[in-house]
Amino acid sequence: MPRRKQQPSEPHAMHPQLAADSHPVAALALCDLQLMDDDNYPWLVLVPRVAGARELTDLDPAQRATLMEEIARCEQLLLDVVQPHKLNVAALGNLVPQLHVHVIARFEHDPAWPAPVWGRVAARPYAPEALVARVRELQAALLQD
Amino acid sequence: MPRRKQQPSEPHAMHPQLAADSHPVAALALCDLQLMDDDNYPWLVLVPRVAGARELTDLDPAQRATLMEEIARCEQLLLDVVQPHKLNVAALGNLVPQLHVHVIARFEHDPAWPAPVWGRVAARPYAPEALVARVRELQAALLQD
Repeated sequence: MPRRKQQPSEPHAMHPQLAADSHPVAALALCDLQLMDDDNYPWLVLVPRVAGARELTDLDPAQRATLMEEIARCEQLLLDVVQPHKLNVAALGNLVPQLHVHVIARFEHDPAWPAPVWGRVAARPYAPEALVARVRELQAALLQD
Repeated sequence: MPRRKQQPSEPHAMHPQLAADSHPVAALALCDLQLMDDDNYPWLVLVPRVAGARELTDLDPAQRATLMEEIARCEQLLLDVVQPHKLNVAALGNLVPQLHVHVIARFEHDPAWPAPVWGRVAARPYAPEALVARVRELQAALLQD
């Protein structure tokens, strides 16, 4: 029996914690694409602009299909730009319940490998020049695909 | 530029580690649906029957769309059967690179909350009767949706 969908009274706005922890890269068809401000890992986050969504079941099937293709686009972007050893994709939301999907490039030399990244080492914010360079590099690669 | 797909010479077979850590529940259209043998959390795993797949980009768009709907079906199954506080969905694969997707029911009283489940507490295998009961409960609920 499908759970009743939440009926949000407010329009979508990015959760303040997500907005504080990340930087805008692009607005895709469904999601805002953000770069996490953690230079330990090339780490993208997709935030569907769907008010009140917590779980994938809070999206309709067409939105889920679009989300999946935007996840795959983020994977390809990271494969092209940073050539990781592995990609990690996750929708957790235990602390920030607004639906968001992590797409993280993992390397055998990164500080959490082979564990998942959460709760391992403190975030290492980008130096300003490195942040600008990384965002521009991602935006340029997005335009090419 | 899309990465060239792997051309596996062998047919799909579930990775031995996944097979050892979980029990079969059902064969969906794309994925084998397994129950992880860890009574700490109601924990499903979807394993696409696609030889050589490591990342979502190794599936074609139709396979990805099917995978997304099978993930949503697992979410709904857990929402219906165990009423969790939150769902966690993840494709990691740092240790077992064969593509597989975790769909985990999380509770505020579970032993890892609010952290992700990996690397927190040792798996607690089901007692035989509890395992059989849980698998049957999931299979019955799958038939009803």
